[in-house]
Amino acid sequence: MTQLKNDTFLRALLKQPVDYTPIWMMRQAGRYLPEYRATRAKAGSFMGLCTSPDYATEVTLQPLERFPLDAAILFSDILTVPDAMGLGLYFAEGEGPKFERTLRDEAAIQALEVAPLEKLQYVFDAVSSIRRALDGRVPLIGFSGSPFTLACYMIEGGGSADFRHVKAMLYARPELLHRILQITAQSVTAYLNAQIAAGAQAVQIFDTWGGALSHAAYREFSLAYMQQIIAGLTREVDGRRVPVIVFTKGGGQWLEAIAGIGADCVGLDWTTDIGLARVRVGEQVALQGNFDPNALFGSPASIEAEAARILAAYGHGSGHVFNLGHGISQFADPAHAGALVDAVHRLSRQYHL
Amino acid sequence: MTQLKNDTFLRALLKQPVDYTPIWMMRQAGRYLPEYRATRAKAGSFMGLCTSPDYATEVTLQPLERFPLDAAILFSDILTVPDAMGLGLYFAEGEGPKFERTLRDEAAIQALEVAPLEKLQYVFDAVSSIRRALDGRVPLIGFSGSPFTLACYMIEGGGSADFRHVKAMLYARPELLHRILQITAQSVTAYLNAQIAAGAQAVQIFDTWGGALSHAAYREFSLAYMQQIIAGLTREVDGRRVPVIVFTKGGGQWLEAIAGIGADCVGLDWTTDIGLARVRVGEQVALQGNFDPNALFGSPASIEAEAARILAAYGHGSGHVFNLGHGISQFADPAHAGALVDAVHRLSRQYHL
Repeated sequence: MTQLKNDTFLRALLKQPVDYTPIWMMRQAGRYLPEYRATRAKAGSFMGLCTSPDYATEVTLQPLERFPLDAAILFSDILTVPDAMGLGLYFAEGEGPKFERTLRDEAAIQALEVAPLEKLQYVFDAVSSIRRALDGRVPLIGFSGSPFTLACYMIEGGGSADFRHVKAMLYARPELLHRILQITAQSVTAYLNAQIAAGAQAVQIFDTWGGALSHAAYREFSLAYMQQIIAGLTREVDGRRVPVIVFTKGGGQWLEAIAGIGADCVGLDWTTDIGLARVRVGEQVALQGNFDPNALFGSPASIEAEAARILAAYGHGSGHVFNLGHGISQFADPAHAGALVDAVHRLSRQYHL
Repeated sequence: MTQLKNDTFLRALLKQPVDYTPIWMMRQAGRYLPEYRATRAKAGSFMGLCTSPDYATEVTLQPLERFPLDAAILFSDILTVPDAMGLGLYFAEGEGPKFERTLRDEAAIQALEVAPLEKLQYVFDAVSSIRRALDGRVPLIGFSGSPFTLACYMIEGGGSADFRHVKAMLYARPELLHRILQITAQSVTAYLNAQIAAGAQAVQIFDTWGGALSHAAYREFSLAYMQQIIAGLTREVDGRRVPVIVFTKGGGQWLEAIAGIGADCVGLDWTTDIGLARVRVGEQVALQGNFDPNALFGSPASIEAEAARILAAYGHGSGHVFNLGHGISQFADPAHAGALVDAVHRLSRQYHL
């Protein structure tokens, strides 16, 4: 493998000294970029993009051509795993992801099996292809949805405002939800390990919906399964640590618990004071975040001021990976994203002297 | 005025001794009740319900006929105030509330004026009518949306997934947002004081969207205006304290700050551990909450278990008003709501011996 030219991101995840605070943006390859929309049009559909290693490579690299980002992230969808489990993923125009089959009755849940990795080969091929195209420029992040987040989609059959069916199962038939989560956790572990084998240099678990749970249910139904996954991951390749980032949107109240499940880094959404978060988690983990993605709708000057506030709140020393607190909006101005990347690189050097 | 027959709710808000933990449910008069849907059909529209003191009285009392709730809450909408400010509230079928005019350009914001109370007389008439109908059975809660929450609707023109226009103004033109919030805070103060004058025995400020802000922006754009309102409220009527409840959905990380703005009670959503919350706020305030409204989709047994968990987490002594962590779902089974009320009354006595 080619030597990494910029390992700032990996070093920050491991709290090793860096010259500046690295930055990447969740959903950095996406609809806010006209070049992404052009490739998406060529591919014909969103899944056409995801299932083609060439297109996935093209869109993964697009934001790196515009901005000096410190990491690339595999372009894919969190729902590839349930799709491989046979649920039949499709995208209804203007409606977001849907599944043809949902997991609500006991028979369907008992019949559920671990995702066959061969159905996900297109993802691992994309990882290899992106690694070759990056040629050591920056590290490549692999990712998966958390078991609870995937289960939400599998049970509701798509997005949901209230997770009514998930909550009904969680409270009335918890053993059924545990079965789904257990099989999904096994699937995600194998899926992330195969991404690592194909070349992912760090992995992130996206727990988009864990924050919809009560603090007690979060521990039992989301956190425990992420801990199980992390315990089963390949953590070193060719003598280099493969860091794990765990991000629960809305998990700011539970940081001490999240920091204890074995990840190298905990992602924060923008509602958390990153300075207080650093005190709460101590030396256990690095922190990633936590710029309000919708603060990109401000002006270049207000974007710089907000970046400065977050950098100052984290303070001196390594262990901070700058990011948005959630995915970038499709309506964001690319120039504003560029202003953020520039501000973070420029303003962070003083904290690493 | 008639003597109160059940003042458990008011006593708990003031942390005075009680025999059991009182309970009411946010949105307890609502679509999950068939009798509500029948009255709504008679009234012809949602605003028809709100603007008729007779209908508002009828639906306010409906849940009390079914369940031995410890408080009634005025049936109204949080958007009455912006409507009175001239924004033109309407309800598009299946789309939620909308405004004919939005507050996005400087001229419209400079022209904004405090809501004339005479346009809100129908609300105060409803309060008086409900007090007469209650005849001292339980206390009546008045309410308003928080300035920030109302501003979200006024600027976006309706609900929003990302508060794009609000965030753009907040970051790029904060002085414009402050003007809206200042005028709205003055309107809300007068509105709540008029509800208290008409007979509301406690008031709640609903900060539904404050949790969408960064921790820093929350303090400046939401909390500060709620503090200003509370400082301007009538706090005693006929020698009896009129308690104030403040509820920021998603505000669990900021409890210490919220507890310091002068309210008697802080509402919690279900993501917060109420036992830890009690330690964090100390003796400053009572706590209200925090049953996951979607846990009502479980079974009567799981509802009882979850209620027991929350009561035990709060522990011994007064200062807990049981409630949901957000409004009850339109899809909730009324029998399950009844099971919750029964469980709380039955299981809480041991904590008040």
